Amino acid sequence: MRILIVLLLLSASFTHAHAQDDKDKKAILSLLHTQTQQWNRGNIKEFMNGYWNNDSLMFIGKAGVTYGYSNTLNHYLSNYGDTTKMGKLFFDIIKIKKLSSEYYWVLGKWFLKRSIGDIGGHYTLLFRKINNQWVIIADHTS
Amino acid sequence: MRILIVLLLLSASFTHAHAQDDKDKKAILSLLHTQTQQWNRGNIKEFMNGYWNNDSLMFIGKAGVTYGYSNTLNHYLSNYGDTTKMGKLFFDIIKIKKLSSEYYWVLGKWFLKRSIGDIGGHYTLLFRKINNQWVIIADHTS
Repeated sequence: MRILIVLLLLSASFTHAHAQDDKDKKAILSLLHTQTQQWNRGNIKEFMNGYWNNDSLMFIGKAGVTYGYSNTLNHYLSNYGDTTKMGKLFFDIIKIKKLSSEYYWVLGKWFLKRSIGDIGGHYTLLFRKINNQWVIIADHTS
Repeated sequence: MRILIVLLLLSASFTHAHAQDDKDKKAILSLLHTQTQQWNRGNIKEFMNGYWNNDSLMFIGKAGVTYGYSNTLNHYLSNYGDTTKMGKLFFDIIKIKKLSSEYYWVLGKWFLKRSIGDIGGHYTLLFRKINNQWVIIADHTS
């Protein structure tokens, strides 16, 4: 009897952990989907909602390392000042990897379809759950 | 008396966790230092010891995503076939971030001093402790 109870508890705990993983993955995928939607409406500020609003946010791109939310926003605003430059954004999520209940790592492809010339590449994102909300705390885009 | 014992235990546990963090950071820095040393001796295979010897290793670079240890090794061998192409490697570690007892994230600059032209950029590395050994499981280099 005692063994049965232990097995039931273990199974419940496993199911719970599995459900939480699904929830976390869905939240992260939803965040990335919302980012492309906002980008494609020309809303860079709303696109930025996916990022951690903090001075410790890190964006690693062509120009090197950009520190902080407002510098990252300015980086996007200066590189993608209008919808012609922004084009239409597509994400292709290659890998979404749980590191712990607090951190996820995501590898994806990005593609900008534009009248002035398409561009694209890869990104790796570090997500952290802060105040029960998943946010990108580091973005390496190449 | 009981409070004192609890405080002592807490303090010991904190000190232990702190010592472990120091140990982990030192191991990761030492691995990266060894990588530059091996590279600068022209030993790509020994340089590769820093990577996880597994088909699930990921290398994200100019050519996109390379999967697995042997493909990553071949990528290096084909791009840096001789010591002229390899040049002298320098790392500048910008950030070494603990994610959990199992994962670390590292941001750094790389620089190759070469007679045929210097090159360089940034990398973000995902480290995992496997069999009590830190290894790079994902490398995004741009």
